[in-house]
Amino acid sequence: MTIEYATPYRSRSFIPPQPGKPYFIEKGMGDRAHLFGDLVTVYAGGEQTENTFNFFTVEGPKGDIIPAHVHADTHEVFYITDGAVRLFVEDQEGEQYEKLLTEGDFGFVPKNCAHAYRIERHHSRVVGVAAGPGGTFERFFENLGTPAEELGLPRTPYVPEPEKFGTVPQRFDVRFLPDHQWRTGS
Amino acid sequence: MTIEYATPYRSRSFIPPQPGKPYFIEKGMGDRAHLFGDLVTVYAGGEQTENTFNFFTVEGPKGDIIPAHVHADTHEVFYITDGAVRLFVEDQEGEQYEKLLTEGDFGFVPKNCAHAYRIERHHSRVVGVAAGPGGTFERFFENLGTPAEELGLPRTPYVPEPEKFGTVPQRFDVRFLPDHQWRTGS
Repeated sequence: MTIEYATPYRSRSFIPPQPGKPYFIEKGMGDRAHLFGDLVTVYAGGEQTENTFNFFTVEGPKGDIIPAHVHADTHEVFYITDGAVRLFVEDQEGEQYEKLLTEGDFGFVPKNCAHAYRIERHHSRVVGVAAGPGGTFERFFENLGTPAEELGLPRTPYVPEPEKFGTVPQRFDVRFLPDHQWRTGS
Repeated sequence: MTIEYATPYRSRSFIPPQPGKPYFIEKGMGDRAHLFGDLVTVYAGGEQTENTFNFFTVEGPKGDIIPAHVHADTHEVFYITDGAVRLFVEDQEGEQYEKLLTEGDFGFVPKNCAHAYRIERHHSRVVGVAAGPGGTFERFFENLGTPAEELGLPRTPYVPEPEKFGTVPQRFDVRFLPDHQWRTGS
């Protein structure tokens, strides 16, 4: 059961390419990608779940706020397993909220709600599920960022080429909101 | 944002009854249920995700193996955040696998694969996502078991009335396999 597979995404992956097959992945050994200073690790994608859900982790150093963005058709879970992450969300009436989430805490961002987050402790880890009736978007990170073989956080941040921002986000139901302001105070 | 709501499931819940609303839930404060010695905590259900996915935790003491069962239409994630859990899975060709999962490890059980698990360290915690094209099944635990107000593991195990086993599982896409044998050795 620790077989490696060639898949459409990786030449070596622990995620079986054919759906319907059980599998186990040890800590950190999912499909890895780097985007800025963060490590994203995919453990299950739409292929495994008939496009109903996915499962990934985001790990990163204490850092700047991620730019505000919105998903038209994707609901998103933030569940913290290590460290602390401040989640910013705006509801569909324009009301803004922020909350510092630590180990065991949970945040839910429905589709069409602008959101952002800031990692507030080094080597925080967030479990994410991001899916909706339109499918799942776990391959966003390696398309805007880059697939990675190495384990652990990026040694140097991966900064996407500027032109990628014009093409990749919309393929994965991500819309950045460059003029968005958080008025919540932190 | 720490408002409590009356929902179809609880008189007091941190999960908003109307979809489309962002929310945060602090550790342990989701909708709780007891089933045997385990505590199940629901943080998001089908109502929040247009029935694409859910998100819950299962915590329990070191104990006996959970009876083998199968879901006809539900894929299931096991992600360990504390302790150790041994996961048993049989694929659709009848091949059986088992794996001891510890913190950060992941297991995926596709629909129609018999499976079971045994908690192998006290106060282990598993993050679960269980969904498929037919919907989500997070309310199984409180229907076969019982909703709980208290925090922490059940002080005394909740043993369902025998007649519940004849009616509840099939409503939530659970089919127990009383004659199933694990030949994997542990």
